[in-house]
Amino acid sequence: MSKLTIWTYDWVPEGPRGFVRDLRLRWACEEAGLPYAVRTIPFDDRETNHLAHQPFGQAPFLTDDDLEMFESGAGLLHLARKSNALMPRDPAGEAETLQWTIAALNSIEMVSVPWWFLKVTGAENDGLTGWMSKRLDQLERVLSEREWLAAGRFTVADLLMADVLRVPHVRAFGDRPVSEAYVARATGRAAFRKARADQISHFKAADETRARRQPHSN
Amino acid sequence: MSKLTIWTYDWVPEGPRGFVRDLRLRWACEEAGLPYAVRTIPFDDRETNHLAHQPFGQAPFLTDDDLEMFESGAGLLHLARKSNALMPRDPAGEAETLQWTIAALNSIEMVSVPWWFLKVTGAENDGLTGWMSKRLDQLERVLSEREWLAAGRFTVADLLMADVLRVPHVRAFGDRPVSEAYVARATGRAAFRKARADQISHFKAADETRARRQPHSN
Repeated sequence: MSKLTIWTYDWVPEGPRGFVRDLRLRWACEEAGLPYAVRTIPFDDRETNHLAHQPFGQAPFLTDDDLEMFESGAGLLHLARKSNALMPRDPAGEAETLQWTIAALNSIEMVSVPWWFLKVTGAENDGLTGWMSKRLDQLERVLSEREWLAAGRFTVADLLMADVLRVPHVRAFGDRPVSEAYVARATGRAAFRKARADQISHFKAADETRARRQPHSN
Repeated sequence: MSKLTIWTYDWVPEGPRGFVRDLRLRWACEEAGLPYAVRTIPFDDRETNHLAHQPFGQAPFLTDDDLEMFESGAGLLHLARKSNALMPRDPAGEAETLQWTIAALNSIEMVSVPWWFLKVTGAENDGLTGWMSKRLDQLERVLSEREWLAAGRFTVADLLMADVLRVPHVRAFGDRPVSEAYVARATGRAAFRKARADQISHFKAADETRARRQPHSN
Protein backbone atom coordinates (compact mmCIF):
# COMPACT_ATOMS: atom_id res chain seq x y z
CA MET A 1 0.00 0.00 0.00
CA SER A 2 1.29 3.43 -0.88
CA LYS A 3 2.13 5.95 1.81
CA LEU A 4 -0.39 8.78 1.98
CA THR A 5 0.47 12.05 3.71
CA ILE A 6 -1.91 14.97 4.14
CA TRP A 7 -0.08 18.27 4.50
CA THR A 8 -1.80 21.08 6.38
CA TYR A 9 -0.86 24.13 8.45
CA ASP A 10 0.92 23.72 11.77
CA TRP A 11 -1.63 26.07 13.36
CA VAL A 12 -4.61 28.22 12.40
CA PRO A 13 -6.72 30.67 14.45
CA GLU A 14 -9.92 29.42 16.12
CA GLY A 15 -12.26 30.57 13.30
CA PRO A 16 -11.29 28.15 10.53
CA ARG A 17 -10.74 25.14 12.82
CA GLY A 18 -13.00 22.34 11.68
CA PHE A 19 -13.11 23.86 8.20
CA VAL A 20 -9.55 23.83 6.84
CA ARG A 21 -9.69 21.67 3.74
CA ASP A 22 -7.30 19.00 4.95
CA LEU A 23 -10.54 17.82 6.55
CA ARG A 24 -11.84 16.76 3.14
CA LEU A 25 -8.83 14.51 2.65
CA ARG A 26 -8.90 13.18 6.23
CA TRP A 27 -12.60 12.39 5.83
CA ALA A 28 -12.02 10.56 2.55
CA CYS A 29 -9.19 8.46 4.04
CA GLU A 30 -11.38 7.62 7.04
CA GLU A 31 -14.30 6.57 4.81
CA ALA A 32 -12.02 4.38 2.73
CA GLY A 33 -9.97 2.97 5.61
CA LEU A 34 -6.78 4.23 3.95
CA PRO A 35 -3.93 4.76 6.43
CA TYR A 36 -2.44 8.26 6.29
CA ALA A 37 -0.06 10.54 8.10
CA VAL A 38 -0.52 14.27 8.70
CA ARG A 39 2.43 16.61 8.33
CA THR A 40 2.63 20.36 8.48
CA ILE A 41 3.82 23.52 6.81
CA PRO A 42 4.08 26.80 8.75
CA PHE A 43 0.95 28.94 8.86
CA ASP A 44 3.13 32.03 9.31
CA ASP A 45 4.39 33.35 5.98
CA ARG A 46 2.11 30.86 4.21
CA GLU A 47 1.76 33.22 1.26
CA THR A 48 5.35 32.49 0.31
CA ASN A 49 6.74 29.60 2.36
CA HIS A 50 5.45 26.61 0.33
CA LEU A 51 4.86 27.93 -3.17
CA ALA A 52 6.90 25.08 -4.62
CA HIS A 53 4.23 22.68 -3.32
CA GLN A 54 1.12 24.87 -3.59
CA PRO A 55 1.40 27.83 -5.99
CA PHE A 56 -1.55 29.69 -4.40
CA GLY A 57 0.04 29.53 -0.93
CA GLN A 58 -2.73 27.37 0.48
CA ALA A 59 -3.21 24.07 2.29
CA PRO A 60 -3.77 21.19 2.01
CA PHE A 61 -1.77 19.17 -0.41
CA LEU A 62 -1.42 15.43 -0.60
CA THR A 63 1.55 13.15 -1.17
CA ASP A 64 1.16 9.53 -2.20
CA ASP A 65 4.61 7.93 -2.25
CA ASP A 66 6.40 10.28 -4.63
CA LEU A 67 3.26 11.73 -6.24
CA GLU A 68 2.32 15.17 -4.96
CA MET A 69 -0.97 16.97 -5.58
CA PHE A 70 -2.54 20.22 -4.45
CA GLU A 71 -6.27 21.10 -4.81
CA SER A 72 -8.32 19.10 -2.33
CA GLY A 73 -10.84 18.31 -5.10
CA ALA A 74 -8.08 16.65 -7.11
CA GLY A 75 -6.85 14.83 -4.01
CA LEU A 76 -10.36 13.51 -3.42
CA LEU A 77 -10.64 12.17 -6.96
CA HIS A 78 -7.19 10.62 -6.60
CA LEU A 79 -8.20 8.88 -3.36
CA ALA A 80 -11.53 7.85 -4.90
CA ARG A 81 -9.65 5.77 -7.47
CA LYS A 82 -8.22 3.74 -4.61
CA SER A 83 -11.45 2.74 -2.92
CA ASN A 84 -14.90 1.62 -3.90
CA ALA A 85 -16.06 3.21 -0.62
CA LEU A 86 -15.57 6.63 -2.25
CA MET A 87 -16.56 5.91 -5.84
CA PRO A 88 -18.27 2.93 -7.43
CA ARG A 89 -16.34 1.12 -10.15
CA ASP A 90 -19.09 0.74 -12.77
CA PRO A 91 -18.89 3.34 -15.57
CA ALA A 92 -22.31 4.88 -14.86
CA GLY A 93 -21.66 5.16 -11.13
CA GLU A 94 -18.21 6.59 -11.72
CA ALA A 95 -19.48 9.15 -14.25
CA GLU A 96 -22.26 10.26 -11.93
CA THR A 97 -19.85 10.58 -8.99
CA LEU A 98 -17.41 12.60 -11.07
CA GLN A 99 -20.23 14.85 -12.30
CA TRP A 100 -21.48 15.69 -8.82
CA THR A 101 -17.95 16.15 -7.46
CA ILE A 102 -17.33 18.78 -10.13
CA ALA A 103 -20.78 20.28 -9.52
CA ALA A 104 -19.87 20.82 -5.87
CA LEU A 105 -16.67 22.63 -6.92
CA ASN A 106 -17.82 24.60 -9.94
CA SER A 107 -21.61 25.07 -9.64
CA ILE A 108 -22.12 25.41 -5.87
CA GLU A 109 -18.80 26.44 -4.30
CA MET A 110 -18.03 28.82 -7.18
CA VAL A 111 -21.01 30.81 -5.95
CA SER A 112 -21.01 30.08 -2.22
CA VAL A 113 -17.38 30.99 -1.49
CA PRO A 114 -17.44 34.44 -3.18
CA TRP A 115 -20.90 35.06 -1.67
CA TRP A 116 -19.50 34.24 1.78
CA PHE A 117 -16.39 36.35 1.07
CA LEU A 118 -18.53 39.41 0.23
CA LYS A 119 -20.79 38.79 3.21
CA VAL A 120 -17.99 38.63 5.79
CA THR A 121 -16.37 41.73 4.32
CA GLY A 122 -19.72 43.56 4.67
CA ALA A 123 -20.17 43.96 0.90
CA GLU A 124 -23.07 41.63 0.26
CA ASN A 125 -24.22 41.90 -3.33
CA ASP A 126 -27.85 41.34 -4.40
CA GLY A 127 -26.93 39.72 -7.69
CA LEU A 128 -24.61 37.20 -6.09
CA THR A 129 -27.10 36.55 -3.29
CA GLY A 130 -29.80 35.87 -5.89
CA TRP A 131 -27.50 33.51 -7.75
CA MET A 132 -26.65 31.69 -4.51
CA SER A 133 -30.31 31.40 -3.64
CA LYS A 134 -31.16 29.96 -7.05
CA ARG A 135 -28.37 27.37 -6.98
CA LEU A 136 -29.23 26.20 -3.48
CA ASP A 137 -32.91 25.93 -4.44
CA GLN A 138 -31.98 23.84 -7.48
CA LEU A 139 -29.90 21.59 -5.27
CA GLU A 140 -32.73 21.34 -2.73
CA ARG A 141 -34.94 20.04 -5.57
CA VAL A 142 -32.36 17.40 -6.53
CA LEU A 143 -31.90 16.26 -2.94
CA SER A 144 -35.64 16.01 -2.40
CA GLU A 145 -35.60 13.06 -4.81
CA ARG A 146 -32.65 11.12 -3.42
CA GLU A 147 -30.70 10.36 -0.27
CA TRP A 148 -27.24 10.76 -1.85
CA LEU A 149 -26.20 12.58 -5.03
CA ALA A 150 -24.72 9.81 -7.16
CA ALA A 151 -25.09 6.09 -7.75
CA GLY A 152 -27.75 5.62 -5.07
CA ARG A 153 -25.17 5.62 -2.26
CA PHE A 154 -22.71 7.81 -0.35
CA THR A 155 -19.74 8.77 -2.54
CA VAL A 156 -16.93 11.30 -2.57
CA ALA A 157 -19.37 13.67 -4.30
CA ASP A 158 -21.47 13.77 -1.10
CA LEU A 159 -18.38 14.21 1.03
CA LEU A 160 -17.46 17.29 -0.99
CA MET A 161 -20.96 18.71 -1.44
CA ALA A 162 -21.73 18.33 2.27
CA ASP A 163 -18.45 20.05 3.13
CA VAL A 164 -19.38 22.94 0.82
CA LEU A 165 -22.88 23.22 2.33
CA ARG A 166 -21.98 22.83 6.02
CA VAL A 167 -20.25 26.25 6.24
CA PRO A 168 -22.35 28.01 8.91
CA HIS A 169 -23.23 31.09 6.79
CA VAL A 170 -24.26 28.84 3.91
CA ARG A 171 -26.23 26.52 6.17
CA ALA A 172 -28.09 29.50 7.66
CA PHE A 173 -28.89 31.02 4.27
CA GLY A 174 -32.61 30.40 3.83
CA ASP A 175 -34.70 27.50 4.98
CA ARG A 176 -33.94 24.36 2.96
CA PRO A 177 -34.93 21.41 5.13
CA VAL A 178 -33.94 18.74 2.63
CA SER A 179 -30.41 20.13 2.23
CA GLU A 180 -30.16 20.57 5.99
CA ALA A 181 -31.09 16.92 6.54
CA TYR A 182 -28.54 15.94 3.89
CA VAL A 183 -25.76 17.87 5.63
CA ALA A 184 -26.77 16.35 8.96
CA ARG A 185 -26.76 12.86 7.40
CA ALA A 186 -23.30 13.31 5.88
CA THR A 187 -21.71 14.97 8.88
CA GLY A 188 -23.27 12.36 11.18
CA ARG A 189 -21.02 9.71 9.64
CA ALA A 190 -18.34 8.30 11.93
CA ALA A 191 -15.62 9.09 9.38
CA PHE A 192 -16.55 12.78 9.32
CA ARG A 193 -16.73 13.00 13.10
CA LYS A 194 -13.30 11.42 13.49
CA ALA A 195 -11.75 13.62 10.78
CA ARG A 196 -13.18 16.78 12.31
CA ALA A 197 -12.16 15.85 15.87
CA ASP A 198 -8.65 15.03 14.64
CA GLN A 199 -8.31 18.37 12.86
CA ILE A 200 -9.49 20.29 15.89
CA SER A 201 -7.09 18.40 18.18
CA HIS A 202 -4.26 18.99 15.73
CA PHE A 203 -4.67 22.78 15.78
CA LYS A 204 -5.42 22.89 19.50
CA ALA A 205 -2.23 21.01 20.32
CA ALA A 206 -0.35 23.68 18.38
CA ASP A 207 -1.71 26.46 20.60
CA GLU A 208 0.73 25.55 23.37
CA THR A 209 3.75 25.32 21.10
CA ARG A 210 2.84 28.65 19.61
CA ALA A 211 2.32 30.23 23.05
CA ARG A 212 5.79 29.08 24.13
CA ARG A 213 7.33 30.48 20.95
CA GLN A 214 5.61 33.85 21.22
CA PRO A 215 5.38 34.44 24.97
CA HIS A 216 4.69 38.15 24.75
CA SER A 217 1.99 38.20 22.11
CA ASN A 218 -1.46 36.72 21.50
CA MET B 1 -16.03 3.23 -30.32
CA SER B 2 -18.74 4.73 -28.17
CA LYS B 3 -21.07 7.38 -29.53
CA LEU B 4 -20.37 10.80 -28.07
CA THR B 5 -22.96 13.56 -28.24
CA ILE B 6 -22.44 17.11 -26.99
CA TRP B 7 -25.71 18.79 -26.06
CA THR B 8 -25.89 22.58 -26.23
CA TYR B 9 -28.50 25.29 -26.80
CA ASP B 10 -30.25 25.58 -30.16
CA TRP B 11 -29.47 29.31 -30.18
CA VAL B 12 -27.86 31.98 -27.96
CA PRO B 13 -27.56 35.77 -28.38
CA GLU B 14 -24.41 37.20 -30.01
CA GLY B 15 -22.62 37.96 -26.72
CA PRO B 16 -21.87 34.43 -25.48
CA ARG B 17 -21.14 32.96 -28.93
CA GLY B 18 -17.65 31.52 -28.89
CA PHE B 19 -17.86 31.13 -25.11
CA VAL B 20 -20.72 28.70 -24.38
CA ARG B 21 -19.09 25.79 -22.60
CA ASP B 22 -19.97 23.17 -25.19
CA LEU B 23 -16.81 24.64 -26.71
CA ARG B 24 -14.73 22.98 -24.00
CA LEU B 25 -16.10 19.58 -24.98
CA ARG B 26 -15.85 20.25 -28.73
CA TRP B 27 -12.24 21.35 -28.26
CA ALA B 28 -11.38 18.21 -26.27
CA CYS B 29 -12.94 15.92 -28.90
CA GLU B 30 -11.04 17.76 -31.64
CA GLU B 31 -7.74 17.44 -29.76
CA ALA B 32 -8.32 13.74 -29.21
CA GLY B 33 -9.73 12.98 -32.65
CA LEU B 34 -12.86 11.56 -31.03
CA PRO B 35 -15.89 11.63 -33.35
CA TYR B 36 -18.90 13.39 -31.86
CA ALA B 37 -22.32 14.71 -32.73
CA VAL B 38 -23.86 17.95 -31.51
CA ARG B 39 -27.52 18.03 -30.52
CA THR B 40 -29.60 20.78 -29.01
CA ILE B 41 -31.98 21.75 -26.25
CA PRO B 42 -34.10 24.90 -26.51
CA PHE B 43 -32.53 28.12 -25.23
CA ASP B 44 -35.99 29.50 -24.52
CA ASP B 45 -37.30 28.33 -21.16
CA ARG B 46 -33.88 26.85 -20.42
CA GLU B 47 -34.36 27.43 -16.70
CA THR B 48 -36.94 24.66 -16.64
CA ASN B 49 -36.94 22.75 -19.95
CA HIS B 50 -34.10 20.29 -19.34
CA LEU B 51 -33.79 19.97 -15.57
CA ALA B 52 -33.91 16.18 -15.85
CA HIS B 53 -30.59 16.35 -17.72
CA GLN B 54 -29.01 19.41 -16.10
CA PRO B 55 -30.42 20.37 -12.68
CA PHE B 56 -29.05 23.94 -12.87
CA GLY B 57 -30.78 24.60 -16.21
CA GLN B 58 -27.50 25.03 -18.08
CA ALA B 59 -25.67 23.65 -21.09
CA PRO B 60 -23.71 21.67 -22.09
CA PHE B 61 -24.08 18.10 -21.10
CA LEU B 62 -22.48 15.06 -22.67
CA THR B 63 -23.81 11.64 -23.58
CA ASP B 64 -21.52 8.69 -24.25
CA ASP B 65 -23.66 5.77 -25.37
CA ASP B 66 -26.07 5.53 -22.44
CA LEU B 67 -23.89 7.45 -19.96
CA GLU B 68 -25.00 11.04 -19.42
CA MET B 69 -22.99 13.73 -17.64
CA PHE B 70 -23.41 17.43 -16.97
CA GLU B 71 -20.64 19.80 -15.76
CA SER B 72 -18.20 20.47 -18.58
CA GLY B 73 -15.29 19.90 -16.17
CA ALA B 74 -16.56 16.38 -15.50
CA GLY B 75 -17.11 15.82 -19.22
CA LEU B 76 -13.51 16.88 -19.87
CA LEU B 77 -12.13 14.43 -17.32
CA HIS B 78 -14.35 11.71 -18.78
CA LEU B 79 -13.04 12.40 -22.29
CA ALA B 80 -9.47 12.62 -20.96
CA ARG B 81 -9.70 8.98 -19.87
CA LYS B 82 -10.28 8.05 -23.51
CA SER B 83 -7.25 9.69 -25.02
CA ASN B 84 -3.60 10.16 -24.22
CA ALA B 85 -3.84 13.39 -26.26
CA LEU B 86 -5.75 14.93 -23.33
CA MET B 87 -4.07 13.29 -20.35
CA PRO B 88 -0.91 11.22 -20.07
CA ARG B 89 -1.30 7.68 -18.73
CA ASP B 90 1.59 7.61 -16.25
CA PRO B 91 0.46 8.16 -12.62
CA ALA B 92 2.53 11.32 -12.10
CA GLY B 93 1.35 12.90 -15.36
CA GLU B 94 -2.24 11.96 -14.64
CA ALA B 95 -2.12 13.34 -11.09
CA GLU B 96 -0.61 16.61 -12.28
CA THR B 97 -3.19 16.96 -15.04
CA LEU B 98 -6.03 16.29 -12.61
CA GLN B 99 -4.59 18.81 -10.14
CA TRP B 100 -4.41 21.64 -12.67
CA THR B 101 -7.82 20.81 -14.13
CA ILE B 102 -9.33 21.23 -10.67
CA ALA B 103 -7.21 24.36 -10.07
CA ALA B 104 -8.74 25.94 -13.19
CA LEU B 105 -12.25 25.19 -11.86
CA ASN B 106 -11.85 25.86 -8.16
CA SER B 107 -8.89 28.25 -7.71
CA ILE B 108 -9.11 30.45 -10.82
CA GLU B 109 -12.67 30.25 -12.18
CA MET B 110 -14.16 30.34 -8.67
CA VAL B 111 -12.77 33.87 -8.46
CA SER B 112 -12.89 35.00 -12.09
CA VAL B 113 -16.54 34.17 -12.80
CA PRO B 114 -18.00 35.98 -9.74
CA TRP B 115 -15.55 38.87 -10.35
CA TRP B 116 -16.80 39.11 -13.94
CA PHE B 117 -20.41 38.79 -12.77
CA LEU B 118 -20.01 41.73 -10.37
CA LYS B 119 -18.15 43.76 -12.98
CA VAL B 120 -20.80 43.41 -15.71
CA THR B 121 -23.55 44.23 -13.22
CA GLY B 122 -21.64 47.40 -12.27
CA ALA B 123 -20.97 46.23 -8.71
CA GLU B 124 -17.23 45.67 -8.82
CA ASN B 125 -15.92 44.82 -5.35
CA ASP B 126 -12.41 45.77 -4.20
CA GLY B 127 -11.95 42.62 -2.14
CA LEU B 128 -12.88 40.31 -4.99
CA THR B 129 -10.78 42.36 -7.42
CA GLY B 130 -7.80 42.02 -5.09
CA TRP B 131 -8.35 38.28 -4.80
CA MET B 132 -8.58 37.98 -8.59
CA SER B 133 -5.41 40.00 -9.01
CA LYS B 134 -3.53 37.81 -6.55
CA ARG B 135 -4.62 34.53 -8.14
CA LEU B 136 -3.75 35.69 -11.65
CA ASP B 137 -0.35 36.90 -10.45
CA GLN B 138 0.31 33.53 -8.82
CA LEU B 139 -0.62 31.81 -12.06
CA GLU B 140 1.59 34.20 -14.05
CA ARG B 141 4.49 33.07 -11.85
CA VAL B 142 3.74 29.38 -12.51
CA LEU B 143 3.46 29.93 -16.25
CA SER B 144 6.70 31.88 -16.36
CA GLU B 145 8.47 28.59 -15.56
CA ARG B 146 6.74 26.31 -18.05
CA GLU B 147 5.06 26.18 -21.42
CA TRP B 148 2.09 24.03 -20.30
CA LEU B 149 0.69 23.41 -16.81
CA ALA B 150 1.11 19.66 -16.36
CA ALA B 151 3.37 16.83 -17.47
CA GLY B 152 5.52 19.04 -19.70
CA ARG B 153 2.97 19.01 -22.53
CA PHE B 154 -0.49 20.26 -23.55
CA THR B 155 -3.23 18.48 -21.57
CA VAL B 156 -6.90 18.92 -20.78
CA ALA B 157 -5.78 21.13 -17.85
CA ASP B 158 -4.45 23.69 -20.35
CA LEU B 159 -7.59 23.43 -22.43
CA LEU B 160 -9.66 24.32 -19.38
CA MET B 161 -7.32 26.93 -17.90
CA ALA B 162 -6.97 28.70 -21.25
CA ASP B 163 -10.73 28.71 -21.66
CA VAL B 164 -11.09 30.27 -18.20
CA LEU B 165 -8.44 32.92 -18.95
CA ARG B 166 -9.48 33.84 -22.50
CA VAL B 167 -12.71 35.60 -21.39
CA PRO B 168 -12.14 39.17 -22.68
CA HIS B 169 -12.67 40.91 -19.30
CA VAL B 170 -10.27 38.47 -17.63
CA ARG B 171 -7.72 38.77 -20.42
CA ALA B 172 -7.84 42.57 -20.16
CA PHE B 173 -7.46 42.55 -16.36
CA GLY B 174 -3.91 43.78 -15.75
CA ASP B 175 -0.82 43.20 -17.80
CA ARG B 176 0.35 39.60 -17.55
CA PRO B 177 2.40 38.91 -20.66
CA VAL B 178 3.22 35.31 -19.79
CA SER B 179 -0.44 34.37 -19.27
CA GLU B 180 -1.36 36.27 -22.42
CA ALA B 181 1.19 34.30 -24.43
CA TYR B 182 -0.14 31.09 -22.86
CA VAL B 183 -3.72 31.89 -23.89
CA ALA B 184 -2.53 32.79 -27.39
CA ARG B 185 -0.59 29.51 -27.58
CA ALA B 186 -3.57 27.41 -26.47
CA THR B 187 -6.15 29.20 -28.61
CA GLY B 188 -3.81 29.10 -31.60
CA ARG B 189 -4.19 25.32 -31.73
CA ALA B 190 -6.07 23.95 -34.74
CA ALA B 191 -8.47 22.03 -32.47
CA PHE B 192 -9.52 25.19 -30.64
CA ARG B 193 -9.97 27.16 -33.86
CA LYS B 194 -12.16 24.44 -35.35
CA ALA B 195 -14.23 24.05 -32.16
CA ARG B 196 -14.79 27.80 -31.92
CA ALA B 197 -15.66 28.20 -35.61
CA ASP B 198 -18.08 25.28 -35.35
CA GLN B 199 -19.82 26.76 -32.33
CA ILE B 200 -20.18 30.15 -33.98
CA SER B 201 -21.57 28.57 -37.18
CA HIS B 202 -23.97 26.48 -35.11
CA PHE B 203 -25.52 29.50 -33.40
CA LYS B 204 -25.44 31.66 -36.52
CA ALA B 205 -27.32 29.02 -38.52
CA ALA B 206 -30.01 29.17 -35.84
CA ASP B 207 -30.54 32.91 -36.38
CA GLU B 208 -32.53 32.25 -39.54
CA THR B 209 -34.70 29.52 -38.05
CA ARG B 210 -35.40 31.78 -35.12
CA ALA B 211 -36.20 34.76 -37.37
CA ARG B 212 -38.72 32.63 -39.28
CA ARG B 213 -40.33 31.45 -36.06
CA GLN B 214 -40.60 34.93 -34.54
CA PRO B 215 -41.22 37.14 -37.58
CA HIS B 216 -42.49 40.14 -35.62
CA SER B 217 -39.87 40.38 -32.90
CA ASN B 218 -36.11 40.79 -32.64
